[in-house]
Amino acid sequence: MTTIQNPAKLTPREARGLFRDGIAAPTTGWCTGYTQANLIAVPEDWAYDVLLFTQRNPGPCPVLDVTDPGAAHTVLAPGADLRTDLPRYRVWEHGELVDEPTEVAARWRDDLVAFLIGCSFTFETALVEAGIPLRHRQQGRNVAMYRTDRQCRPAGRLSGPMVVSMRPIPADQVDTAVRVTARMPAVHGAPVHVGDPAGLGIADLDRPDFGDPVTAVPGDVPVFWACGVTPQAVLMASRPPFAISHAPGHMLVTDSSDAEYRVVG
Amino acid sequence: MTTIQNPAKLTPREARGLFRDGIAAPTTGWCTGYTQANLIAVPEDWAYDVLLFTQRNPGPCPVLDVTDPGAAHTVLAPGADLRTDLPRYRVWEHGELVDEPTEVAARWRDDLVAFLIGCSFTFETALVEAGIPLRHRQQGRNVAMYRTDRQCRPAGRLSGPMVVSMRPIPADQVDTAVRVTARMPAVHGAPVHVGDPAGLGIADLDRPDFGDPVTAVPGDVPVFWACGVTPQAVLMASRPPFAISHAPGHMLVTDSSDAEYRVVG
Repeated sequence: MTTIQNPAKLTPREARGLFRDGIAAPTTGWCTGYTQANLIAVPEDWAYDVLLFTQRNPGPCPVLDVTDPGAAHTVLAPGADLRTDLPRYRVWEHGELVDEPTEVAARWRDDLVAFLIGCSFTFETALVEAGIPLRHRQQGRNVAMYRTDRQCRPAGRLSGPMVVSMRPIPADQVDTAVRVTARMPAVHGAPVHVGDPAGLGIADLDRPDFGDPVTAVPGDVPVFWACGVTPQAVLMASRPPFAISHAPGHMLVTDSSDAEYRVVG
Repeated sequence: MTTIQNPAKLTPREARGLFRDGIAAPTTGWCTGYTQANLIAVPEDWAYDVLLFTQRNPGPCPVLDVTDPGAAHTVLAPGADLRTDLPRYRVWEHGELVDEPTEVAARWRDDLVAFLIGCSFTFETALVEAGIPLRHRQQGRNVAMYRTDRQCRPAGRLSGPMVVSMRPIPADQVDTAVRVTARMPAVHGAPVHVGDPAGLGIADLDRPDFGDPVTAVPGDVPVFWACGVTPQAVLMASRPPFAISHAPGHMLVTDSSDAEYRVVG
């Protein structure tokens, strides 16, 4: 596997070029300051349900762009090809994962509508700038994600629980973390819960449903944000005949700046 | 015509009850502090285009709720009937206005999807609280609205220009007006333009395309916000076979508080 020197300093265009050439690395820490997005592409006859689900559940499902049927380009990254420019994809049939390739050019269909959905990587930049330590990064792990007992508002064939990401935050910085992320409603916004995981029906923080367990430091409080994994989890549970998504952590790196998603108050 | 004493102090439920009984007054100034919403109901096969248009143009089209096909109720106003509880409606066939009744119970169809879209009345509450004079209210007029030369991003069969509302604001309070409305991205957000109307392709402020002309006071600067009339204007220009909307100024009064749409920073 090729090692990329200093991926944080690459431009989004350079990063996408590497991915197009077959490099398949997770995008955490790549292209500092640029927004990364989740991809979910579904047949046109499923697009209304997905779009309505995102409208009804904007916290976990902040839509950054929706393509026209069959199109493989997005206003978020002019010149990018959505079929080749992510590092790794997942191909789904009837809700089952059938392949995890590095490009999907031959599998893209004329009736596919692609949803690009905001990612908490975007607000992590703002948290770091505010001086808040991110334990999962310090520990070299993916963020921990959990299914909750909070049901999303259903839309057509789609229904299911909200998924949250959790970050342990020093107690005296929780207010800052809330304030910083509240200013970014387009990428999940303020936490949905602070403190006891039982409040969200989470039994054991050491056993996340997605990502990695993350170790808290004494004095940390668990803080939970609505997570962009929610729409993918809900969609696949409803078993659409076909879908393509990014592979976990292997996101679209866009040309948008993280700062564009901050509300200036 | 019945005169309602102190409509500002009514609860939304009381107001909707009056409208259900046939009272047909514009809702400006009714139920202080409660959010009012634009209504557009279209046949199900037009709903995806409308929803995608609103996603691609969130400034002029802040969607607050979308109903299931045929449903006449909304989470924004539990107990309300969308077919009777607005003061006045417009019925459209092939983009032509055919009727302006006070209820549409007999015309509602099982395939209608209703979009409830945010209204600048919501941020006007915040402007007034910030001490900013609203000239149209002082002058007892509707706000002035204009078609611009800025094209919205098209979606399916829908395309057309953005409509803006204009408020003359004292020059030394423009920064406050920008800051206050920037905090409310769910109801149009910050102005799209400040100053010379030619910057939006508007030839004559005294001749608005919708609403009333409003007289500026010396020292005022024209400030322009994306307007919720945009999706209705764009939709009707594309001539859907059937649609129902609210009549101008005759909005749905919801149970949501205006304050819910402020981002706390």
